[in-house]
Amino acid sequence: MKALVYKGPGKMALEEHPKPVIAAATDAVVKILKTTICGSDLHILKGDVPTCTPGCILGHEGVGVIEQVGTAVLAFQPGDHVIISCISSCGKCEHCRKGMYSHCTTGGWILGNTIDGTQAEYVRIPYADTSLYHIPVGTDEEALVMLSDILPTGFEAGVLNGKVQPGSTVAIVGSGPIGLAALLTAQFYSPAKIIMIDLNDYRLATAKRFGATDVINSTDGTATEKVMKLTDGRGVDTAIEAVGVPASFLQCQEIVAVGGHLANIGVHGTKVDLHLEKLWDRNVTITTRLVDTVTTPMLLKAVQAEKVDPKRLITHHFKLDQIVEAYETFGQAAKTNALKVIIEA
Amino acid sequence: MKALVYKGPGKMALEEHPKPVIAAATDAVVKILKTTICGSDLHILKGDVPTCTPGCILGHEGVGVIEQVGTAVLAFQPGDHVIISCISSCGKCEHCRKGMYSHCTTGGWILGNTIDGTQAEYVRIPYADTSLYHIPVGTDEEALVMLSDILPTGFEAGVLNGKVQPGSTVAIVGSGPIGLAALLTAQFYSPAKIIMIDLNDYRLATAKRFGATDVINSTDGTATEKVMKLTDGRGVDTAIEAVGVPASFLQCQEIVAVGGHLANIGVHGTKVDLHLEKLWDRNVTITTRLVDTVTTPMLLKAVQAEKVDPKRLITHHFKLDQIVEAYETFGQAAKTNALKVIIEA
Repeated sequence: MKALVYKGPGKMALEEHPKPVIAAATDAVVKILKTTICGSDLHILKGDVPTCTPGCILGHEGVGVIEQVGTAVLAFQPGDHVIISCISSCGKCEHCRKGMYSHCTTGGWILGNTIDGTQAEYVRIPYADTSLYHIPVGTDEEALVMLSDILPTGFEAGVLNGKVQPGSTVAIVGSGPIGLAALLTAQFYSPAKIIMIDLNDYRLATAKRFGATDVINSTDGTATEKVMKLTDGRGVDTAIEAVGVPASFLQCQEIVAVGGHLANIGVHGTKVDLHLEKLWDRNVTITTRLVDTVTTPMLLKAVQAEKVDPKRLITHHFKLDQIVEAYETFGQAAKTNALKVIIEA
Repeated sequence: MKALVYKGPGKMALEEHPKPVIAAATDAVVKILKTTICGSDLHILKGDVPTCTPGCILGHEGVGVIEQVGTAVLAFQPGDHVIISCISSCGKCEHCRKGMYSHCTTGGWILGNTIDGTQAEYVRIPYADTSLYHIPVGTDEEALVMLSDILPTGFEAGVLNGKVQPGSTVAIVGSGPIGLAALLTAQFYSPAKIIMIDLNDYRLATAKRFGATDVINSTDGTATEKVMKLTDGRGVDTAIEAVGVPASFLQCQEIVAVGGHLANIGVHGTKVDLHLEKLWDRNVTITTRLVDTVTTPMLLKAVQAEKVDPKRLITHHFKLDQIVEAYETFGQAAKTNALKVIIEA
């Protein structure tokens, strides 16, 4: 089969690879219909993710059709259409049993990281019963690729951890795909304001179309001042960090109100300054989270009920043969205005 | 009357001062029976609290007897014995109405900070109806001085924010009065382990007497290793910061388990490093809090029911005339082994 293989920092290649086989009774082999590229795939290519070693097939998102299942798989059978969760969860360990699937002791984010991933014609999914979701008949499968990772990540790490409430004020720092996923799902809870902050006007215009009440280009360094003006000097109840660099985390600290929530989504490569000399008495909560995908069933119902349209995140389409080009398009988003790209296998 | 007056960094004096009078209809004047000294009084003396200006009477804790009330005070009358809350709350502003009294827009921590405090024979208490608590007849009043600040602070900022649960593991970094207050109140929730970490063996021995299951002297730099050993390599579900320096906050980051809570109590004077490059995917929650004193009624009932004995925190007694000596004893706790000192007015 064709598969995109990581070849070490800065290198990847679409090449022929053996088709995966059932290795454990709880496995399924899934024929990929559509997959996508995530910011963390770019992190791997930069060499930032030491757990991913050369030879690994990239990708942890996608929808597909069950090809084969192990003897212990009871919830799925060949022919079933499924969403592949970016998180593999055994469902049995202590962390899984409290719903923290992200830290499954033998799973978690392993697809396209420590085991072969979804940017291929086929993928082996461990713990299939607890790591795949049935696609309801008649649902737009392409939209559901967004339920593998980006929508639950924006929702869980941003909106839920940030405790977005009716009438509250929200700022999202970073209007890339993940910030926009938080923007889309924040609207479930009817906040009064969702202020989007970014350096890129095109992304901010997109945010406005997606429901942001206010947008701020932070290039001139006056974003804090502008947020304070928009919130009667209080700051925001929820500040969502959707970039993953010290400056954006600092921005969130500056605008979070007393009693507020700073919800980090970004993948950080370095330490950041935490201004406890200002925050120690401000009754703030700061959260970090690798997506647990506990909300995937909820999001699936919200998509079916047309309460959110994840398809709005999709800007480009490619065939698997064009995947290297797809990476270029996604990686140079400032030029291409790409959000999420769909790759058809 | 006699009052301890702040005279600028490093200076204070016990001197004659006019007795306070009712200035607003919601005020009460309280004759102080007993007061105490807080770590934040020492911060003021160091010049760390710019809101407190020379001439201010120090102190924000105590029990007393109502001397006089304003016309709008309905819940108290002269002769009533009361606990003075360190937080003055109007009860009417947006923050008060959601229980975040610490950030009352015209109150909060103002006693002994921006208005005259309790280290005197009399004190004016603003918003008396919502800032004082009746002392039940027959209760040990001296013990209740601990309910003005230290017990609710350790409980709210440490135990409640840290989400201590039955069977969970807790570490408290700092075995001074505030860490010990967290230790005493953490036991309400039956955690499996409470590990106390400090540099001082006497304080750790006190922690052991107060119910710590394990104590670690962190002088040799192996505290993290020891906590990991005690928790099967997982770290603790709750790490409580009870010092207020970068090293102790760092210690908490090192020992908090995935899905865990880092609850800051300490008053910090400088920024700290937050290792988001390690924590971004660990599903941790970090909280800060100025005590809201919303749990004072609960703690009062717990004291009456003998579920906690705050008197254990009291080590020394002084008369108001000896208050400067009391500050010396409290300020040199490493030598004097002082926890909380009681000053009788």
